[in-house]
Amino acid sequence: MPPGPLVYSSLPLAFLQSCHAIALLQTQRRFVAVHIEARTMKIESVDFYYLSMPEVLDIGDGSQDALLVRVAAGEHVGWGECEAAPLVSIASLVCPMSHSACKPVEASVLGQTIDSVDDIRKIGNLVRTNSLDLLQADHTFSGIDIALWDFLGRRLGEPVWKLLGYNKCFGKMPYASVLFGDTANETLLKAKTIVKQGFRAAKFGWGKFGLTSVEDDRAQLHAAREGLGQDGILLVDAGTVWNTDVDAARARLKVLKEVRATWLEEPFVSGALSEYHMLSMESAPVGLAGGEGCHNFHMAKHMIDLAGLQFIQIDAGRIGGITIAKDVADYAVAKGVTYVNHTFTSNLALSASLQPFAGLESHTICEFPTELKSLAMAMTKNHIVPDDNGILHVPDAPGLGIEPDLQGIGPYLVESEIRVRGKQLYKTPPLR
Amino acid sequence: MPPGPLVYSSLPLAFLQSCHAIALLQTQRRFVAVHIEARTMKIESVDFYYLSMPEVLDIGDGSQDALLVRVAAGEHVGWGECEAAPLVSIASLVCPMSHSACKPVEASVLGQTIDSVDDIRKIGNLVRTNSLDLLQADHTFSGIDIALWDFLGRRLGEPVWKLLGYNKCFGKMPYASVLFGDTANETLLKAKTIVKQGFRAAKFGWGKFGLTSVEDDRAQLHAAREGLGQDGILLVDAGTVWNTDVDAARARLKVLKEVRATWLEEPFVSGALSEYHMLSMESAPVGLAGGEGCHNFHMAKHMIDLAGLQFIQIDAGRIGGITIAKDVADYAVAKGVTYVNHTFTSNLALSASLQPFAGLESHTICEFPTELKSLAMAMTKNHIVPDDNGILHVPDAPGLGIEPDLQGIGPYLVESEIRVRGKQLYKTPPLR
Repeated sequence: MPPGPLVYSSLPLAFLQSCHAIALLQTQRRFVAVHIEARTMKIESVDFYYLSMPEVLDIGDGSQDALLVRVAAGEHVGWGECEAAPLVSIASLVCPMSHSACKPVEASVLGQTIDSVDDIRKIGNLVRTNSLDLLQADHTFSGIDIALWDFLGRRLGEPVWKLLGYNKCFGKMPYASVLFGDTANETLLKAKTIVKQGFRAAKFGWGKFGLTSVEDDRAQLHAAREGLGQDGILLVDAGTVWNTDVDAARARLKVLKEVRATWLEEPFVSGALSEYHMLSMESAPVGLAGGEGCHNFHMAKHMIDLAGLQFIQIDAGRIGGITIAKDVADYAVAKGVTYVNHTFTSNLALSASLQPFAGLESHTICEFPTELKSLAMAMTKNHIVPDDNGILHVPDAPGLGIEPDLQGIGPYLVESEIRVRGKQLYKTPPLR
Repeated sequence: MPPGPLVYSSLPLAFLQSCHAIALLQTQRRFVAVHIEARTMKIESVDFYYLSMPEVLDIGDGSQDALLVRVAAGEHVGWGECEAAPLVSIASLVCPMSHSACKPVEASVLGQTIDSVDDIRKIGNLVRTNSLDLLQADHTFSGIDIALWDFLGRRLGEPVWKLLGYNKCFGKMPYASVLFGDTANETLLKAKTIVKQGFRAAKFGWGKFGLTSVEDDRAQLHAAREGLGQDGILLVDAGTVWNTDVDAARARLKVLKEVRATWLEEPFVSGALSEYHMLSMESAPVGLAGGEGCHNFHMAKHMIDLAGLQFIQIDAGRIGGITIAKDVADYAVAKGVTYVNHTFTSNLALSASLQPFAGLESHTICEFPTELKSLAMAMTKNHIVPDDNGILHVPDAPGLGIEPDLQGIGPYLVESEIRVRGKQLYKTPPLR
């Protein structure tokens, strides 16, 4: 955990100590409602649903499968989502204990009290202690943490961003997040389409970018700039393609400056702090962006402190959920680094990714995947779409403000089963 | 990956380029043998065997289960071991692809060429790229990397430490690695037993240490010192008990100095670089030790560079295998930090953990778990034991020099099965 002063620096201590204080600020009806809720609730179930497109393609599109999480206590539920590798996160939820610091994730969640935001942090700390040697646990718990925030928001009738301590949430400028085209011309057409859709910013990433020649990349980048027009905000995602090769990244700086890219994202893997820092010394005015690979607060802190980043990108579905993502947002504010969400799956994950910086007025830009597979759209009844001015608004509704579509999900449900010593440890639970 | 100059700095480039050069140094008979082997081999199978004690206790003893790894190509095999959470690593071996950077680990291993040490690094790089977003992959591949080194050593008739570029291997002084007793008196008796067994060093860890009062810890530490005698080397493992709480750790420094502890291990979680560094400013002459939680080269590099460590402890079964562990050993040498193995399971894992620093004469101390459960002893036909002078020797035999005992393993085999969409993705393979 981060040191005291960094934790929820924008959240009054009294608020953390008793979430029920919210009730006092509400109308009589709401107060009654919250009064009824004031009894202690214990988490009764954690259900994981593995969803997938019928065919998963070998492309950098994270919307091809999903792991939907449902937590329940009493008559209340909350929904969340883990990022990537559903089967592995399922296994880490239910696996037999290896030793005292390698327990299945559910062992630290089931039966725990869930009455306040403080309880969510307590549960997360418990998971990190009891599953210290279970590497996958951070990804697995991320979806549970998200579901617990949704649960608490629904139960208390408040949007998550309010429970996080924000009094107001601010519209974000979405960038259309798409893959590079196979050819420069395809990228040009994608960029033009994005402009027609009303976006003022676009991010191109993955595909062959960085893998072939600097000249190929130059053609791709100029095509993107041409398609976006001179005023469009152009962002570039290298997807860790150069691993730790500073020279390979450096070779692209000239053209990135030519096309006035706002940022170069993930030139290297998340741990390559010194390589990031070396590149940052030469990249201005192109900023460096990164952080989606961080799976705990410390990794993000190190990237903010040591990698020369201008933008820290956090996936709430990986870093340990909304709780840790908010810690990072607070730390980014303190250090003058801009927080940006990372998300590439459903609108449930999108809402979760937006909550941690919903109340940061000057952190305006946000990721908004626009080439989602049908699964990601079918997963929820409602969707987050830009308004007429192209601005994205975090839902002003209880919890995450996104309703799973159980009927829509049905066709994508992947029946799975894990048996150990003849005993069924996991079987896809019924959708409910 | 680490930058070029750090990779195998002690390994001649020509050696890396062609492992078959070894053959030229061998006798005619060996040359013929290697000549026969010089044909290109592709990895045909990767088998994971989940082993466990009938009952796993809620204590900090990592020898209660194991994940044994077998790789095979042609008539050759190699054996390795992944650290902790066998079911989760099994799932990450065989899970369906989520997207291009989240593939099952076996997708980057099966069918790959395995003729030289260079091939092992290539396969590891492929896994890290293709399974970038699969968090568990580092732990999973660790066991495979270990098995590939064993495979290559057996195939070429050389111990792994020679393939790593060491000309000579040096005896290590083992410390008996045990859990604190439930009471100070129990710890006293454990320490006396250790001395009787011929050990000159002992590490006490986990249990209630750090969880109750400073006075309780004081009693435990003085009991350990009394039992070891004034000349014994006393090491203390806090097992991350204080998470990031520098004050809690600081409160134990006085007594750690009183009992002349050589190191304090893992006061904090691996990512807490600044907290480690703060404590290190006050801890001398007690050194700080840590690093077992590192699951890639970068994390270990950051701990060496930024945490004020005197000792970097690497578990080859977590960090990405022997390949990455050797990178860390090279880096530790360059930075004047002492490399120590971390291991707490079978003698196969012990041998793997020793190889990366087998040739470092001045890095003498090594972990040697002495309270292994029957599973860990039954897993191998031969065992690594200290000589009459209490010195441990890395096996001077092909590969890891440890022979799995398939008959001994049988009773501990945990039959497991994973089914997705009705298709069996994993079933415990036959022992062979």
